[in-house]
This record gives sequence, structure tokens and C-alpha cells, in this order.
Amino acid sequence: MMLRLLSKSHSRLLIILAAMLPAFALAEETGASTGHASYATTFLWIAILLVAAKVASLVEKVGQPSVLGELVMGVILGNLILIGIPWFEHPKGDAMILFLSELGVVILLFQIGLESNMKKMMQVGLRALLVATIGVILPFVLGTYLVGPWLLPGESFTTYLFLGAALTATSVGITARVFRDLGKLQTPEAQIVLGAAVIDDVMGLIILAVVSAIATTGSVSTLDVALITGKSIGFLVGAIILGHMAAPLLGRIFSLIHTGVGMKFTLAISFGLFFAAAAQFIGLAPIVGAFAAGLVLDPVHFRYFKDHKIVSHVQSVVADAPENVKRKVGEAMEEHADRHIDELIEPLGHFLVPIFFVMTGMAVKIETMFDTSIMLVALAITFAACIGKIASGIAAGPVRKSLVGWGMVPRGEVGLIFASIGRGLGVVSDQVFSVIVIVVILTTLCTPPVLTFLLKKKTA
Amino acid sequence: MMLRLLSKSHSRLLIILAAMLPAFALAEETGASTGHASYATTFLWIAILLVAAKVASLVEKVGQPSVLGELVMGVILGNLILIGIPWFEHPKGDAMILFLSELGVVILLFQIGLESNMKKMMQVGLRALLVATIGVILPFVLGTYLVGPWLLPGESFTTYLFLGAALTATSVGITARVFRDLGKLQTPEAQIVLGAAVIDDVMGLIILAVVSAIATTGSVSTLDVALITGKSIGFLVGAIILGHMAAPLLGRIFSLIHTGVGMKFTLAISFGLFFAAAAQFIGLAPIVGAFAAGLVLDPVHFRYFKDHKIVSHVQSVVADAPENVKRKVGEAMEEHADRHIDELIEPLGHFLVPIFFVMTGMAVKIETMFDTSIMLVALAITFAACIGKIASGIAAGPVRKSLVGWGMVPRGEVGLIFASIGRGLGVVSDQVFSVIVIVVILTTLCTPPVLTFLLKKKTA
Repeated sequence: MMLRLLSKSHSRLLIILAAMLPAFALAEETGASTGHASYATTFLWIAILLVAAKVASLVEKVGQPSVLGELVMGVILGNLILIGIPWFEHPKGDAMILFLSELGVVILLFQIGLESNMKKMMQVGLRALLVATIGVILPFVLGTYLVGPWLLPGESFTTYLFLGAALTATSVGITARVFRDLGKLQTPEAQIVLGAAVIDDVMGLIILAVVSAIATTGSVSTLDVALITGKSIGFLVGAIILGHMAAPLLGRIFSLIHTGVGMKFTLAISFGLFFAAAAQFIGLAPIVGAFAAGLVLDPVHFRYFKDHKIVSHVQSVVADAPENVKRKVGEAMEEHADRHIDELIEPLGHFLVPIFFVMTGMAVKIETMFDTSIMLVALAITFAACIGKIASGIAAGPVRKSLVGWGMVPRGEVGLIFASIGRGLGVVSDQVFSVIVIVVILTTLCTPPVLTFLLKKKTA
Repeated sequence: MMLRLLSKSHSRLLIILAAMLPAFALAEETGASTGHASYATTFLWIAILLVAAKVASLVEKVGQPSVLGELVMGVILGNLILIGIPWFEHPKGDAMILFLSELGVVILLFQIGLESNMKKMMQVGLRALLVATIGVILPFVLGTYLVGPWLLPGESFTTYLFLGAALTATSVGITARVFRDLGKLQTPEAQIVLGAAVIDDVMGLIILAVVSAIATTGSVSTLDVALITGKSIGFLVGAIILGHMAAPLLGRIFSLIHTGVGMKFTLAISFGLFFAAAAQFIGLAPIVGAFAAGLVLDPVHFRYFKDHKIVSHVQSVVADAPENVKRKVGEAMEEHADRHIDELIEPLGHFLVPIFFVMTGMAVKIETMFDTSIMLVALAITFAACIGKIASGIAAGPVRKSLVGWGMVPRGEVGLIFASIGRGLGVVSDQVFSVIVIVVILTTLCTPPVLTFLLKKKTA
């Protein structure tokens, strides 16, 4: 089909385009640009990453969510250097692309928050708390007291503590994308996983702070633990209450300045970024703040803003239609023009979110898997890590427990952060670090296909 | 009205929110964040800049384009330090925000290109060339041979050359935003200014390369001039021809992977970024490439992609309407769903473009205006710079010449680039640099109100 659609002259053009790529690489090396601060390379790489992500969405043809395609595309591009192709090394060290990637995951969790229903979330709140608690305690105990000492003998107890801690935090971005790609974000299972992952992040933060204190000072006071705990819980509760009060007020004030769709967009995105920043200042992951912001933001708060352009556009289209048609169309358009905030944020998501997932894939170092003994240890720890999270699904109540359990499996970048802090403190060796990296890779890459399989199976 | 809308409890909430700001500043200073690469400050500042830009759009209430509000807001925030308020110094040095700002102007010119009509542009091509030529030669001659030696006696001829060169290049972003804010982008005047500004940038580049060569080697060969000229013209012609051939092909190939609106968005934005990068690699400003990309991209190339979500949403809204209503609505929605690319890019513009204009305003150093002798010289040179550009409007043919001439007045960042390269080469003193900075400020800030006045005046 592809071949039939492309005429001869088109193929020739493709060859010209392909031939231009090395010229670009050359220009980059020789620094051919003059004068202007050179962001050209970054612009080019954003374009390449976005197109690569879209090519990877071919996996949808075989029923897989596009996030899996983006991750695998990242893994492939990021490791081409192993077979002597160094073309794709640039983005790994491009500060701007790393920033856009981080902004992407913040936007994603803001979007997920917008699509999540606060009421539904409250309904599953207790169960999410239980799932989170089990999903933190079990992997932590397994890592620290069982698989750590057993599979990595001779390391210090603090090392095992860090291994256990690294196994606790759920990376919710991947699970949320899978549920979203398959249109299952509104299921109770999805809401429980989202709630549990947020609670889990708070618990993980407390554990990290405590474990770090033990590693540096040898001990930690109960007061410190209480302080960290209080601060974290205080933030979440405060963010939700304050956000609920502030959003309608801000909507009203800014509608006095302008009632266009641009104002609605700006208010929403600024709200999300403000909460993301607040979360990080308090020591939580910015994605927790962005999620909370999305959760409290309700389209009704911003009902003052309309997409005047679309309304007048469609009105002009049906200008000569009979009166009753015009009225009906007008009503339908009013509803549509009162666009939900998530539709406004979507193009920004299209721009930034794929960068995050491709970059996450690119950070995977396949060569760490080549050492057989490390690989075996990592496989065993991955198994323990999965068991701990899957078991937490038991607390999810009358829903599909396996879905919830598997949804909690990916460790993603949070586990890597724990590992790198441990390495910074000198208690996590290169060997243990490699093990944690492999565990993160495996849990991240195995979740999308498993969840997809479970979601497509009709019965639980 | 404001007061009546805000109840007492609301005002109390506002006070709480205001009280939180210093806490943020403290958290930033003490580096309270742990673990995660800290982008929190950047996130916070993006939110602040976006909200500040929207507050500044209050100028629309007095009939001014919002771009003027954004610029002035930037000037105010960026100079608050002069009255002892250092709160807004951060973004000036935030590499990520500077990058987003640059990405913003690229997106803006891509949008302007999308909204420009290639055919209309061709129709005014010759007149644009004439306007550009006069608008480059006149200020260059005035700067180098007249006002330079007269107002800044004792400097070298090379300095005057740089002064003249800095007066040539038009910064099209500001003019384009004014025309756009007032819905006049489709007028022949706007098309002439846009075309002339692109040609002008190419000429400016050639002058810069030649003048730099003179400053470093003392002379320059005719061959070098020919080479630089050929490369620049070659890029523009090549980009437009290649883009015209590649766009439909890319649309067809990628529609085989996915026909959603996300694919359409990604293709368009990648196309723009690719051309921006290509322009910079060749030594032109990235905005020239982005504009060319927008110019050649026609919605018809991407007709394969539809916004399936909106179609099904509105169809469900009118599901129980009579058959003829449903058909009519269906037709209207089909047309709307086949959304123009510029509507998809718009939210990204809402996010990035205001950052560029507020940051441009913030770069203005008001204190340079405090030295009376420098200020007087700068005022005189600004006068000469304006005269040179306004006179170029004469070549615009049977349109409102004053609109075209004033549209060419802003020098913006391009003039600053010339000045800083000159300073880097040691031929532009701090005094001359300050003069050029003031000329840029004045031409940038005076254009929006003058253009607005001219555009709102009924007769020419």
C-alpha cells in the first residue's frame, strides 16, 4: 500500500531529504551558525524526537498503547551507539530537551488530574490508602530484609535500606498513559492506582528522608520523621482545599480582564505549574502538585471563558440554514465552545509528553544487562518488586485486583532518584546501582503490555 | 465592580495567597527541594510570566494591542530592581525561560507564516523587495556616514559601520503581533511588511557577515560577499520549493500510521522546527526558517487528519434531533473538524509567545536612559532610524505607505545581536552599545501604539 501511494518523483524527494541529514550533523559539529544564541540543534532534535514518537505509534496497529512504542523507540535510539551509530547521543545531554521532558511529565499528570474525578477519587480514597500502604511496606521489607541480604551478601545494612526504599515508589506516569491510551481512565481501577500512586509518593518521600538521615548521621529522631510526614500530608490537604477555594475566585477575577479562550488556557496552565512548583519546594515530586492542581480544577470554575472564534465560525457556516437548524447548531456549539480545560491543554501535551517517554526510553542503558550475574540478581529482585506491588492489589476491594496490582508495578524515574541519592551518599555501590537500574527498566517496560493484555481481557 | 464581585471570604483568601509568595522565595533561596532535578523555580516563573502577560492584556480595554501590554509589563517587572524590588530578577538568567522565549518567537513566526497567504505574498513580492532594499540602504547610509560621525565623533569608521548595520534589520515579531492582535494580518500592508522583513533579514545577514569580516581582517573579498549572498538566497528559495514538495508527501506517509489530530499537530510543529533549525545552520535567524515553513504549509496537505473526538462529541449532543438537523450539524462539524493547522498550534502559542514578549521587555535596561548625553544622541539616532524605515514605505505601491513604513521600524533583538557581535569584536564601545540598546528600545516600544493609531484611523 505504501509503495503504491508513493510515485517515483516522491521517492526521489525522500532520498534528497535523507541526504540532507548528514549535512545537518556536519553543520552542528562545525558550528556553522553565527550570531544568534544557537538553539538550532535543540529545535532539530525536538522535531526528530516528536516524529520518532509518532512513527512508534505504529504499535497501535497491533493493539499496544502508543506509550509502549515511545518507550521502545527511545530504548532503540538511545542504544544505537552500541552498534556504532552515535547519531542519537545528543538529546541525552541537551539541557533544554531534558527540561522539556520534565515539563512534559508535569503536563501529563496535570492532564490526568483534569480527567480524574475528585468525587470518584474520594470514593476510592480508603482503598487507595490501603493499596499504597501495602505497596510500600511489602517491597521495602522484601528488599531490605530478604532479597537484599540474600542476593547481594556482604553489603552494609544501609545499602539494603536503600535497595528497599528504591523498590517502594510507583512511577504513575506510565500506568496513567496506558489507561488513558486505552480509554480506561474513568474505571475504579484507574482511580485507585492514581490515588495510591500519589499517597505512595508521599510515603516514599518520608522513607527517603529517613533512610538518608540514617545513612548520613547513623540515626534519625522520631521528631524528624514526624516533621517530614506532617509537611507532606499538610501539602496535599492544603493544596486541595486552597485550590478548591482559589480556582473559582481566579476565574472570576481574570474574566474581568478578558473572556477569551487564551485566558482560560493561561489560567489553567499557570495553576498547574504553580502547584508543581509548590510541591517541589516542599520536597515532593512536582508531578504530585500538578496532579493535585488538575484534580481540583473543574471546568465550571472557568465557565466565564468562551471560544468566541469557533462559535462565530460555525454560525457563519449555517447562516443560511432554516431557523430551527440554526438554533440546534447554536446549542451544540455553545456546549462545545465551553470547551473543557483538558482539550485546551491537549496540544501542549502532544508537544511535550512524547518527549518525556522517548527520553525515558533513551536513558535505558542496555549494556547494564550484559553482565550475567548482575542480570540474574536484578531479575530476582524485579520478581520480588513485582510480587510486592501485585500483592498490594488485594486491598483494592471489589474491582479487578490484578489490574490495580500491575498498575503499581512501574518504578520509573523515582526509583532511579533513590538509587542516585544513595550512590551520592556512598552507600550504594555501582553494582547495586546497576541492579536498581535494571529493575526500573524491567518494571517500566513490562507494565504496558501486561496492563494492555489485562484491560483487553473481557473477564477478570 | 471588582469589589462587588469579591466577597469578604474571597479577599481573605487573596491575602493568604499573597502571603505565600515570600515563603516561595525563601524556599528557593534555601534550596528546600530534595532529590529531583530542580525545575520548580522555572515552573513558578513560567506561571508568573504568563499571568503577568494576561494581566497586561488589560491594555486592550483602552484599544491597544496586547503585545504592547506584554512589552510594558516586561519593562516594569524587569526594572523594579531600580526601586529596590529584586523579586523579578530571576527569569533574566534562567536558561530554560530564555530558551522557551526563543522557542516562542519561532512558534509565533511559524503561526504568522501559516496565516500568511503564499499567493498574496507573491503578488506583493516585488514591492516587498523594494521596501526592504530602501529600508536597509537608507538607515545603513544614515548611520554609517551621517549620524554616526556627526553625533559620535572620534570613533573609528568600523564603529560607524556597525552602527549603520545595527539600524538595518527589522524585527518582524512585534509588527506581526500588532497586525494580528488587530485582525489585519491579511491586508496587503501586512503582507508587504512580512515579506520585506524576511528579505531584510537576509540582507542584514549579508551586511553583518561583510562588516564583521572588515572588522577582523580589515578587508573582505567580493567572492566572500557573493558566497554569503548566494547561500542565503539559496536557502529561502530551496526551503520554499522543497517544503512545497515535501509537505503533501509527509502528510500522506504519516496518515498511513495514524489519522488523528495529534499526528497532524506533530507533523506541523516538527516541520516548523526543522526549517527553523535549517535556517540557523545556514546562518540565518531561525524565525526566517519558521516563517518559510508556515508559508509553504497548507491545510490541504494534511487533509487526511481529522479531530475524531470533536466530531463524535457533537454528534452525541444532537443524537435525538430530527434527521435534517443532524445532517446539517454533521456538515458543519466536518468542516470544523478539518481544523486548520493554525488552530492546533494556537495553544502552544498561548503558552510560549507571551514569554517572549515579556522577556523582551525585561531585557530593557531603563537606567541606560538616565545619562542625558547618551540619551540625546540615542534620540537623534532613533529619529534617523525611523526616518530611514518610514521612507522605505514609499516603495510599497498603492497601499497605505505610512503603515508599511512604520511596520518596518522596530529593530528588536536583531539590532541587539549586531551590537553585541560588534562589542565582542572590540569595535563597539560601551557608550555606542548603550546608544544602540536605547534605539532598539524606543523603536520597539513606539511602534505598537503608532501602528494601532494608524490601523484604527479610517482614512489613509
